[in-house]
Amino acid sequence: MSDNPSFVLRAVEDVIYEDRPIPEIFDDEVLVEVKKTGICGSDVHYLAHGRIADFVVEKPMVLGHESAGIVSKVGKKVKNVKAGDRVAMEPGATCRICEDCKRGKYELCPDIIFAATPPYDGTLCRYYRIPGDLVYKLPDNLTLEDGAMMEPLSVAVHVVANIAGFRSNQTCVVFGAGPVGLLCMAVAKALGASRVIAVDIVQQRLDFAKNYAATETYLPPSFQQGESRMEYSQRNAKQMREQLGIEDRGPNAIDLVIDASGAEVSIQTGILIARTGGTYVQVGMGAPEVTIPITLLLVKEINFKGSFRYGPGDYALAIALAGQGKIDLKPLITHRFAFTDAIAAFNTTKAGKSPDGKGVIKAIISGPDVPLNEY
Amino acid sequence: MSDNPSFVLRAVEDVIYEDRPIPEIFDDEVLVEVKKTGICGSDVHYLAHGRIADFVVEKPMVLGHESAGIVSKVGKKVKNVKAGDRVAMEPGATCRICEDCKRGKYELCPDIIFAATPPYDGTLCRYYRIPGDLVYKLPDNLTLEDGAMMEPLSVAVHVVANIAGFRSNQTCVVFGAGPVGLLCMAVAKALGASRVIAVDIVQQRLDFAKNYAATETYLPPSFQQGESRMEYSQRNAKQMREQLGIEDRGPNAIDLVIDASGAEVSIQTGILIARTGGTYVQVGMGAPEVTIPITLLLVKEINFKGSFRYGPGDYALAIALAGQGKIDLKPLITHRFAFTDAIAAFNTTKAGKSPDGKGVIKAIISGPDVPLNEY
Amino acid sequence: MSDNPSFVLRAVEDVIYEDRPIPEIFDDEVLVEVKKTGICGSDVHYLAHGRIADFVVEKPMVLGHESAGIVSKVGKKVKNVKAGDRVAMEPGATCRICEDCKRGKYELCPDIIFAATPPYDGTLCRYYRIPGDLVYKLPDNLTLEDGAMMEPLSVAVHVVANIAGFRSNQTCVVFGAGPVGLLCMAVAKALGASRVIAVDIVQQRLDFAKNYAATETYLPPSFQQGESRMEYSQRNAKQMREQLGIEDRGPNAIDLVIDASGAEVSIQTGILIARTGGTYVQVGMGAPEVTIPITLLLVKEINFKGSFRYGPGDYALAIALAGQGKIDLKPLITHRFAFTDAIAAFNTTKAGKSPDGKGVIKAIISGPDVPLNEY
Amino acid sequence: MSDNPSFVLRAVEDVIYEDRPIPEIFDDEVLVEVKKTGICGSDVHYLAHGRIADFVVEKPMVLGHESAGIVSKVGKKVKNVKAGDRVAMEPGATCRICEDCKRGKYELCPDIIFAATPPYDGTLCRYYRIPGDLVYKLPDNLTLEDGAMMEPLSVAVHVVANIAGFRSNQTCVVFGAGPVGLLCMAVAKALGASRVIAVDIVQQRLDFAKNYAATETYLPPSFQQGESRMEYSQRNAKQMREQLGIEDRGPNAIDLVIDASGAEVSIQTGILIARTGGTYVQVGMGAPEVTIPITLLLVKEINFKGSFRYGPGDYALAIALAGQGKIDLKPLITHRFAFTDAIAAFNTTKAGKSPDGKGVIKAIISGPDVPLNEY
Repeated sequence: MSDNPSFVLRAVEDVIYEDRPIPEIFDDEVLVEVKKTGICGSDVHYLAHGRIADFVVEKPMVLGHESAGIVSKVGKKVKNVKAGDRVAMEPGATCRICEDCKRGKYELCPDIIFAATPPYDGTLCRYYRIPGDLVYKLPDNLTLEDGAMMEPLSVAVHVVANIAGFRSNQTCVVFGAGPVGLLCMAVAKALGASRVIAVDIVQQRLDFAKNYAATETYLPPSFQQGESRMEYSQRNAKQMREQLGIEDRGPNAIDLVIDASGAEVSIQTGILIARTGGTYVQVGMGAPEVTIPITLLLVKEINFKGSFRYGPGDYALAIALAGQGKIDLKPLITHRFAFTDAIAAFNTTKAGKSPDGKGVIKAIISGPDVPLNEY
Repeated sequence: MSDNPSFVLRAVEDVIYEDRPIPEIFDDEVLVEVKKTGICGSDVHYLAHGRIADFVVEKPMVLGHESAGIVSKVGKKVKNVKAGDRVAMEPGATCRICEDCKRGKYELCPDIIFAATPPYDGTLCRYYRIPGDLVYKLPDNLTLEDGAMMEPLSVAVHVVANIAGFRSNQTCVVFGAGPVGLLCMAVAKALGASRVIAVDIVQQRLDFAKNYAATETYLPPSFQQGESRMEYSQRNAKQMREQLGIEDRGPNAIDLVIDASGAEVSIQTGILIARTGGTYVQVGMGAPEVTIPITLLLVKEINFKGSFRYGPGDYALAIALAGQGKIDLKPLITHRFAFTDAIAAFNTTKAGKSPDGKGVIKAIISGPDVPLNEY
Repeated sequence: MSDNPSFVLRAVEDVIYEDRPIPEIFDDEVLVEVKKTGICGSDVHYLAHGRIADFVVEKPMVLGHESAGIVSKVGKKVKNVKAGDRVAMEPGATCRICEDCKRGKYELCPDIIFAATPPYDGTLCRYYRIPGDLVYKLPDNLTLEDGAMMEPLSVAVHVVANIAGFRSNQTCVVFGAGPVGLLCMAVAKALGASRVIAVDIVQQRLDFAKNYAATETYLPPSFQQGESRMEYSQRNAKQMREQLGIEDRGPNAIDLVIDASGAEVSIQTGILIARTGGTYVQVGMGAPEVTIPITLLLVKEINFKGSFRYGPGDYALAIALAGQGKIDLKPLITHRFAFTDAIAAFNTTKAGKSPDGKGVIKAIISGPDVPLNEY
Repeated sequence: MSDNPSFVLRAVEDVIYEDRPIPEIFDDEVLVEVKKTGICGSDVHYLAHGRIADFVVEKPMVLGHESAGIVSKVGKKVKNVKAGDRVAMEPGATCRICEDCKRGKYELCPDIIFAATPPYDGTLCRYYRIPGDLVYKLPDNLTLEDGAMMEPLSVAVHVVANIAGFRSNQTCVVFGAGPVGLLCMAVAKALGASRVIAVDIVQQRLDFAKNYAATETYLPPSFQQGESRMEYSQRNAKQMREQLGIEDRGPNAIDLVIDASGAEVSIQTGILIARTGGTYVQVGMGAPEVTIPITLLLVKEINFKGSFRYGPGDYALAIALAGQGKIDLKPLITHRFAFTDAIAAFNTTKAGKSPDGKGVIKAIISGPDVPLNEY
């Protein structure tokens, strides 16, 4: 049977709609009718370049992995949801038998089947087959758009709650006020942060962050001629300290630095301003190699960690924080597109703004036949 | 009263013996007659440059901080030792009231009084005044030279046991087979490491490491013309993997990477070969800034940490491991000098070998009037 | 010089006002003019029994240890406060040199000098001498009464944040709705608890808890004739599960059980309802020996912990949570007494209500000459 | 096809040999030809009582769960072993999708399929079907009998390494010198314990423990007439302190107490002698309810934990410690039986000694047609 329209990437900048068969499900799986899908930078990157690092699109692949929908069919072993439930979909199915899956770090599973990471199809289709334990029932007060936002929110929960172990009354600085950076700010605030400092080079983004979840904002200075990156970062850190009253220790120190920008000068500045004994988490991907002030990291005994996707408990905490009203996802959804306009959604995300000049934070594509204004 | 000969640094390359007053002690202090003192790279650095980073020798300063001796006088509040006890001396007296002192991270105390770090005098003298809780009674089977080695051994214990939380049956690679690197290998082995891989660019050091505490050794290749450092490190990591059968996961993966070299290519290679979800600890100080493969660190969720000096419990564990015979410190003591020959000890350490060509691992200076062969 | 009126316990039920000398301070100490002091059950116990366990009042002792005041004099080494500052006072001065002090568990220091624990004088006096790092400046929006409440609040912070490591969106049950139990509820809620279930055998206390910080309440049933305590607890746990929808796992399970009652049946019920893999913290002191369902504790791998006083960071977090408005201490202060009416304060606390029938949560005694209504 | 002789429990004290079909395996499973199986107290309990707690034998069930064998067939998805490999078999297959399975605590999975726990068949048969990731290749220097011992050794690894987080140079006391107690001692010693004190009421067991892995032993006194259990435990703890030089703090304190006896007086004594801030782990099952000195547990802030079966990494560490020669399992195997003599093995284990008077630590039953002396 075939009634499963899908948005397929065939090659660089070459996408098409295909009608694919409706998947059969196993006993431990569910079939979800996908209703809302957010567009992520990685989707755009595959469209534009056909690859990310070693992941190369070698055969047609359905795009999309930030989705929510309605359960259409339930395998007989599945107990956590039933047909008709509104669910968020966790897009990575792990092997469950490797060391990392077993010890509570399944985000590191080498055999993960991740939606829209080659060679695995993504979720921009009508029907998506998924293991039952990877769909999470949405509380009544969350929309399906909120549900689609659970994917990037879980990335932020993983950074702040899981990897950093952030606690109430701690302080944090977040470099980069894009979707993931903003969500990291929101999670830090929801977990009781006493200060959330947003850093970005675009003032409008800072304004948004301030209205959204940041308690303070900081706009870095321009580069000076002849200045090295590290010299710039030293000057930048000094200015941040003075402007925001940041110290190395005590209540005015920065317990957690998050870089969601991937920019070398942000990473350097972050290490320079982190408290003695503090934590730094890298979640932004940019230049694959950066220069860091390692002796300073050593004498401050900074705990410098990477954060990749999400692991056990992250989706559940994301849904709980949103469901309890501690995080509001609606302001982040700036653009909405019909399924048949998916290409426009990608182009808008790539451009960073729509033709009317409105900046994109998150663009959502509705499923086939799903109205834009049905959340 | 004055009968306290002391070895004093007055300016760059300008040292002199002075007879200083014997210190009075407070009720919570002890007076130690210093018997054996090891020479550290930092002592040599102050002699040669008059400074390390922001620590500048601005007034005459007694050198030395790796010492053991015999308790000469005991303040009336001191209960843990008595006159005549042979003791190792922990050279950093912390403020005990700051946040870091109270939360179990006293190595980060900003007000630490550290022997032979300007402006505080070191231990190369006859009598040294020290808080009672910073001297540790040596078991009978350890010599006073062993006692002097407790300082660098505690640095290694801090790296391996405290910062890395190394556990039995884990694997580790140590870059740099100098004193600290060798001691990190010894601690890892004492804690039950299943593999301890020593990496150094000098074959003789690797030979020593193999006989001492390493289970395997690795000699990196030479640079090739036109190769960048990161290209070199990639090639180096690949060769290590092939030569030693190192994998990203499972029992052949590297749980802990320790860099005790401070060399950029070691740091890069270390990140490249660490296991997914593994730990990396930086203890070697070299170039203050290095380039690291940060995207790889992120996707592998590596826990990258700095290790500085030593904290709660480190001296006690160091003494226990040596006292139980799990770590043998004697092979590391390659050169011995009389107090009056202190300059020769410094020069030999700086040269890396004595005039007879014998490589230096650790040179020990005896206290005034203490025979070289009285351990 | 002597102008330091003090409320002194001489023997069981024998108290007197004495004018004691104003203490001299050391360089690392401050002198505080005590303004507000809360009465704790332990103060009342010393008055009534002259001892608590092995702590026996053998010579006259000033009572009181939950205090705030204004800094009157500052030792020259003290940097964190200045004369005139309004401060909360942490009443335990630890040795700072034992293993526990150094490793971040100073609440376990065997040589602690704790106010109003024999043989050390307490704070019910005009001037109290205290180490500088044990006074904490109050934010402007907190009163001195709030400051006095920092002691019991720190007990609760120690239980919930420090010992239990409670995290946002977790659930908890608190047995006992007295001052410490209520404050544990308040801390759990402030740290983001999704459920805070109060359990008490007095309905009025539950009503208060519900208005204060609990999301739900539970009134245990009466004992049935012939029923053993464990049988009662089994029945009680079953009823709690049914009435409140408590399960062993998942979002309806109880992540943290706190017993602030000291009652055997509460302790038993607490273990019975804790989630598989959950945490239980005992803070209430009652019968020194109780019977617990240990096989159940084993198969559920419950982490059962004791919580004693407070340790590093607890006062700071207590002040921050109250200062940020996440915890309101005012509703807990039910009675106020002048310094000259201290005996009435003790009697009222002991009775559990004032002559007008109003139940006591916390009675505050003002310092000498301090008006009742000056907060 | 049917050639699978199996030892089946039908009802209390009613066992029979049946020839059951050889199981078909799924793609992620292997078929193991079982060669050696140890007898556990729980097997004996099912034979004698037909139940353990809520687990009731309601239909015929194959007994046995401590097994090793040779891989006979391999599902096509299995990569870690191949036919002919000698393997230890982990007898609990978990659901892999519940919260506990995902967060690294799979021992708590409510849907575990555990060999010889009703209604699931055990391993006393020729062919046993098992998920591929639950068989562990044995190193060449371990025998199949060693392989069968991996099950109880993993219980001990879970207690000491996983639940207690035991570290080198710590001290421990183990109550109960049966198989699990002895293995806990062996693991503690292998992880670098400085003291391992064995406690048992049978002197011969203590003698064995001393020769095996204990550094010291302690034989508790007899009960005195009129003494309560807690009075006895107080006296017992006092005697232990005096006889063994045990203190509350410092190097002579007990970092870890393990109860592998299940006896109330052991549990009480264990809490009394644990160090301030120490850890206690309950692994022995005895009386389901015991009286504990809870106020002492509170003021010492003891971390009291249950340990159930084994979780992620435990089997791997068990095999590594044995394979590296840090733990010798052979002395524990005191009796060997042919498959056709299984009943004798059970009876001997139940009696605690064989007719010749030799005490049982572990009895091993060979697989069908496997010679007793083929290890």
